[in-house]
Amino acid sequence: MATQSAAKVAPLADRVVVKPSEEAEQMRGGLYIPDTAKEKPQQGSVVAVGPGRFEKETRVPMDVKVGDKILYGKYSGTEVTIDGEQLLILRESDVLAVIS
Amino acid sequence: MATQSAAKVAPLADRVVVKPSEEAEQMRGGLYIPDTAKEKPQQGSVVAVGPGRFEKETRVPMDVKVGDKILYGKYSGTEVTIDGEQLLILRESDVLAVIS
Amino acid sequence: MATQSAAKVAPLADRVVVKPSEEAEQMRGGLYIPDTAKEKPQQGSVVAVGPGRFEKETRVPMDVKVGDKILYGKYSGTEVTIDGEQLLILRESDVLAVIS
Amino acid sequence: MATQSAAKVAPLADRVVVKPSEEAEQMRGGLYIPDTAKEKPQQGSVVAVGPGRFEKETRVPMDVKVGDKILYGKYSGTEVTIDGEQLLILRESDVLAVIS
Amino acid sequence: MATQSAAKVAPLADRVVVKPSEEAEQMRGGLYIPDTAKEKPQQGSVVAVGPGRFEKETRVPMDVKVGDKILYGKYSGTEVTIDGEQLLILRESDVLAVIS
Amino acid sequence: MATQSAAKVAPLADRVVVKPSEEAEQMRGGLYIPDTAKEKPQQGSVVAVGPGRFEKETRVPMDVKVGDKILYGKYSGTEVTIDGEQLLILRESDVLAVIS
Amino acid sequence: MATQSAAKVAPLADRVVVKPSEEAEQMRGGLYIPDTAKEKPQQGSVVAVGPGRFEKETRVPMDVKVGDKILYGKYSGTEVTIDGEQLLILRESDVLAVIS
Repeated sequence: MATQSAAKVAPLADRVVVKPSEEAEQMRGGLYIPDTAKEKPQQGSVVAVGPGRFEKETRVPMDVKVGDKILYGKYSGTEVTIDGEQLLILRESDVLAVIS
Repeated sequence: MATQSAAKVAPLADRVVVKPSEEAEQMRGGLYIPDTAKEKPQQGSVVAVGPGRFEKETRVPMDVKVGDKILYGKYSGTEVTIDGEQLLILRESDVLAVIS
Repeated sequence: MATQSAAKVAPLADRVVVKPSEEAEQMRGGLYIPDTAKEKPQQGSVVAVGPGRFEKETRVPMDVKVGDKILYGKYSGTEVTIDGEQLLILRESDVLAVIS
Repeated sequence: MATQSAAKVAPLADRVVVKPSEEAEQMRGGLYIPDTAKEKPQQGSVVAVGPGRFEKETRVPMDVKVGDKILYGKYSGTEVTIDGEQLLILRESDVLAVIS
Repeated sequence: MATQSAAKVAPLADRVVVKPSEEAEQMRGGLYIPDTAKEKPQQGSVVAVGPGRFEKETRVPMDVKVGDKILYGKYSGTEVTIDGEQLLILRESDVLAVIS
Repeated sequence: MATQSAAKVAPLADRVVVKPSEEAEQMRGGLYIPDTAKEKPQQGSVVAVGPGRFEKETRVPMDVKVGDKILYGKYSGTEVTIDGEQLLILRESDVLAVIS
Repeated sequence: MATQSAAKVAPLADRVVVKPSEEAEQMRGGLYIPDTAKEKPQQGSVVAVGPGRFEKETRVPMDVKVGDKILYGKYSGTEVTIDGEQLLILRESDVLAVIS
């Protein structure tokens, strides 16, 4: 279902559209001891990727691709609701790591 | 009617003129569970596009074109009223994604 | 009368000298529903244009020319009074759009 | 008298030394309706000009020359007193326009 | 065990994944006289390294490699929990030094 | 005596070491009408000059040389005491002008 | 003893590891009249130097070398304790001058 609405959203520049993963929330609920001095990361899967930002007449290639499971900071990005589905639009620089 | 007044506004540099879409407001009213920690995005259709910003003697091409439906952050841009019609002038960097 | 005192002011770099248009104020008074979360734009006509800012040994050409009707943010620029006439000096980057 | 002490001050980089004009103060006293939301500009004549700031191994040429009457923002620059004469040292980027 | 979960995390750009070293905490507990005016550094070992950030069409090579023991500031980075193991994702610019 | 201890201090990059001039303090005491809205400038003589800051593989040449009398803002730089002599270390960009 | 633990710390990029000099503290205790409006500088000797920061595919050479006695601002850098020895890790840009 993520793919259905994601197909409709083409992020600009170096942005990625992410479907937050609910399992992550649960896994972390079990294992994570919160540390108030640090921002809490979250997981999701990438459903759409922008063409990269323009720098000196060329585009900087994106390191993230559709299907990647990624880690990102809790307060990163902007939530959007497309066809009733909650997605998150991040800049690639807000993506911390790809998980395999 | 958007096209009528938009034809009169030529945005400078990397700015776009957007007609906020009222359906979006309603759709979101139904589906969106507000999250106060995140800024609420909005939809609209692009009615005019600037020539791109000048960088090192060339213009950076615009990724957005007239007619595109776009997502943007709630507090982005400046509202203008042309011939009684409310429009919004954004920088392209404030446009999150194009919706199809 | 704008041209008379404007002829005396040569703005530097990428600045423009603007004669705020009083009709705009009235038109907006009638149609504009103020939204306190957004800055209110204003209209004026350009009476003098700088040579452009210097970047890497050349000047960036100006997109705005004398006679253009422009939109700008309410708190942009610096007011100056030349021969009793109130003008506004803006950077071109504060000009949102040209109206025709 | 301005020239006498100005000859002693060689501003660095893109700075200019300005002798604030007292007539301007009086002219403005008569005509200017203060607007607290905007910074009040002032006039003066340029008594010394720096060689321009260094950018990529060349100097950016100065647009302002000795003798120019200029407009600048009220809180720009640093006041200096040379031989009992009050002068102001500004960066050229704080000069709004040249008046003729 | 660090390697097990670290193998699953591929940091982006100039980020490194660090396993905080518990001995360091103890060693410091014994020797370190806290100075509230300075941020407390920490030690850890690098378990994964990003490909380097993209600058002008090439990647800036990373100075840190997997296995390095590093010093970093206490409030640097973002904590992540992968398979119950607490790791830290830092930018290389937050790494102060490599210890041998 | 300034030269004695200054010979011992080699400033880095675009820094200069300045011996604040006490006469200046007295001259200003007599002539200067303080204006609380502006920072008070000070005079001194340059006793050591750095090699210039590094920019794109070359050094930007310094405009200030040993022996110059300079004007600088009151809160610029860092005071140092070498062999009981109070000196000030400034960046060249904090030097307003050379006085002759 | 400084060299012993310093040999174990390899600072990254343009960082230097400094052994704060205790004599300096005493000398300053005797001679320095504190001025609360200025930050108090400190002395130390350089025990390790990074390879320089990476700029446009080359490294910017370091001006500071092991053994140099340097001046730095009081709140610069991060304190680290290696084998019970207190050291300070600074960026070279926080080094004010070399003393001879």
